[in-house]
Amino acid sequence: MAVNLPEMGELLPVAGIQLGCSSAGIRYQGRNDLAVIRLDPGSVVGGVFTRSSFRAPPVAVAAANCGLARGLVINSGNANAATGETGLRDAHASCEMLATHIACDAQEILPFSTGVIGEFLPMDRVAQGIDAAASRLNDHGWADAARAIMTTDTAPKAVSGRFEVMQRTVTATAMVKGSGMIRPDMATLLAFLGMDAAVSPETCARLVRDLADRSFNRLTIDGDTSTNDSFVVMATGQAGGDAIEAGSNGYDALLDGLTPLVVELAQRTVRDGEGATKFVTIDVVDGRDSDECLQVAYTVAHSPLVKTAIFAGDPNWGRFCMAIGRAGIDGLDPCGISLYLDDVTVAEGGLVAGSYSEDDAVRVMARDEYVITIRLGRGAASETIWTSDLSYEYVRINAEYRT
Amino acid sequence: MAVNLPEMGELLPVAGIQLGCSSAGIRYQGRNDLAVIRLDPGSVVGGVFTRSSFRAPPVAVAAANCGLARGLVINSGNANAATGETGLRDAHASCEMLATHIACDAQEILPFSTGVIGEFLPMDRVAQGIDAAASRLNDHGWADAARAIMTTDTAPKAVSGRFEVMQRTVTATAMVKGSGMIRPDMATLLAFLGMDAAVSPETCARLVRDLADRSFNRLTIDGDTSTNDSFVVMATGQAGGDAIEAGSNGYDALLDGLTPLVVELAQRTVRDGEGATKFVTIDVVDGRDSDECLQVAYTVAHSPLVKTAIFAGDPNWGRFCMAIGRAGIDGLDPCGISLYLDDVTVAEGGLVAGSYSEDDAVRVMARDEYVITIRLGRGAASETIWTSDLSYEYVRINAEYRT
Repeated sequence: MAVNLPEMGELLPVAGIQLGCSSAGIRYQGRNDLAVIRLDPGSVVGGVFTRSSFRAPPVAVAAANCGLARGLVINSGNANAATGETGLRDAHASCEMLATHIACDAQEILPFSTGVIGEFLPMDRVAQGIDAAASRLNDHGWADAARAIMTTDTAPKAVSGRFEVMQRTVTATAMVKGSGMIRPDMATLLAFLGMDAAVSPETCARLVRDLADRSFNRLTIDGDTSTNDSFVVMATGQAGGDAIEAGSNGYDALLDGLTPLVVELAQRTVRDGEGATKFVTIDVVDGRDSDECLQVAYTVAHSPLVKTAIFAGDPNWGRFCMAIGRAGIDGLDPCGISLYLDDVTVAEGGLVAGSYSEDDAVRVMARDEYVITIRLGRGAASETIWTSDLSYEYVRINAEYRT
Repeated sequence: MAVNLPEMGELLPVAGIQLGCSSAGIRYQGRNDLAVIRLDPGSVVGGVFTRSSFRAPPVAVAAANCGLARGLVINSGNANAATGETGLRDAHASCEMLATHIACDAQEILPFSTGVIGEFLPMDRVAQGIDAAASRLNDHGWADAARAIMTTDTAPKAVSGRFEVMQRTVTATAMVKGSGMIRPDMATLLAFLGMDAAVSPETCARLVRDLADRSFNRLTIDGDTSTNDSFVVMATGQAGGDAIEAGSNGYDALLDGLTPLVVELAQRTVRDGEGATKFVTIDVVDGRDSDECLQVAYTVAHSPLVKTAIFAGDPNWGRFCMAIGRAGIDGLDPCGISLYLDDVTVAEGGLVAGSYSEDDAVRVMARDEYVITIRLGRGAASETIWTSDLSYEYVRINAEYRT
């Protein structure tokens, strides 16, 4: 059901990072559901995490263990969320188990869980899974790991890139999982980017925020922010050279080099959105500031009436009016608003355009992917987000997911 | 598809109010789509209106013409929204046409439109419709009017009541239309309450706000606020006595007498929600203040994942966690949160309850109607809202509505 979701291409090993997977049988059978990642000594990890009040125990532990780090343990099928003290103990125990294999402190391990909320992790199976995955650590484990962390994703999502930063070649590989409960507040469900560039813990913390704002913080599928959303950047430093500092030219080059990778992953997350039949880019332009552009973009993207119109391919200008109108923008003048579907002008000055032909708009909305541009006519700010539609299939998936 | 939506019972005439309907053929064929209401001299009208930036021209005119008033003209099939100067001219013209029949000023008429957004009213047909409807004005026109204002409603919705205020008998009849694009900000799509109590224009303005806060401002179907939402109270004063003033005992008696009528209409609106298969009451209790209770209630009610779980009858505690968690309540401690489905305790202290049996919860969620109680455990405030689920039928209706 995914919309033009590309296959994973070649995934490049990243010097200093090994991955291993296993089939722990936590919830899924007959597939890998646990991945461990080993980072060489001296590696640094930065992360952004959900701001949900119901932040899952592993998220709290992962957030605390950012900085110098040696490993990650990730399971799918069970989110270890809304599990209280037991969940926290289980998250710590997972770290201890992997720390034994890597010969490091448990505080140097970050745990991640994704899946059903409100159930305890079966720790005996997790323990066996960690042992098995740790025995298989290797440089080429990215593709298997991208598959092991999937829940309702229809396909694994991972990309690689190689680019120059200050005369040194940086190699980066990143993977993401997630297709429902997706409106990242800090980052999408689970995303991991490994690279061999050298950065300090502070710079890594800044880098992951900057990357999230260009990618995972610009998408929405159903507006529902998860209890486990996490995005981490792992930096081994094995590309050599001095540590790149935030604010330097090297930092800008690194950010620009990594941005296409995370944007691609963010877009693939939307392409693989639950029940998605359309991949839609919403550009809000000529706003007073970035906040109001995002507010309009997200209100339009979350409106069930807009989403069903996108599903139906119905250029229903009225529903766009409604959603823009209820976005809560102070003093917004409808007479300044224009709407475009790709190159078709639907409305100008708050009214259906004189040149408008519904047939043209229907042709655009029949495409798998197109751009909705909303011009607010009152400033110079702009923002772009990506979203999907609301289909019968979305209802089916979410009415049948658990029971 | 409506959930236990009662038939209209007997509708009581209200002294001083006559109604007439006609089939203007604005959009629908073979049914009435236009209603006019005549108020005796000395009548007062108060209203609450959508806060959408794309407020429709008739809404602007109706809001301006509150106070002493003589009539209302209402059409279905076309919302006269996003129609700019032409739409404003058309709204004024409709007032002038009815004013001719009633022999009053156009400023004493309030116009209302509901239906498709972004198209101009066919004013020739509107004119014929107003003429025909005005020729049929009578005391017993409420039921026909409730039918004439429908759009995607599956049935007309109107109620009557009679009660004592300061030793005088007050008679009230009210009607509402709306089943999609419903998350009233000030009031639901279109609701009209007529009564023979005597109130000043200022008191009427306060009364309509107080009633909206107890009824139409406590429901949501799809979270989408319309460009045309309006709720007006018409008071003819023919029950006799001095005008009731806000803050008096008489005012409290009037408010309490009218509240059951508007609550019933608000609930019927949800029961007739597009594609609704469930009528769900969400009680949020033990919050710090009313605002945070409403914020949690609406976040839960708007979550597509909660709504599909309600459709499926799936007691998915994880989705409730997620929605409560993302409601943006500052410092909310998950350990204080409990969840109940009718009398079944699902979670306490942020964890699935020890006594919990999924079978019990499934039994509750199989009911047509039930109460979801969310205890925040940090205060004494509480709020109640009503909502429906997200079904295949919701998608079908909204993917097929226009094209």
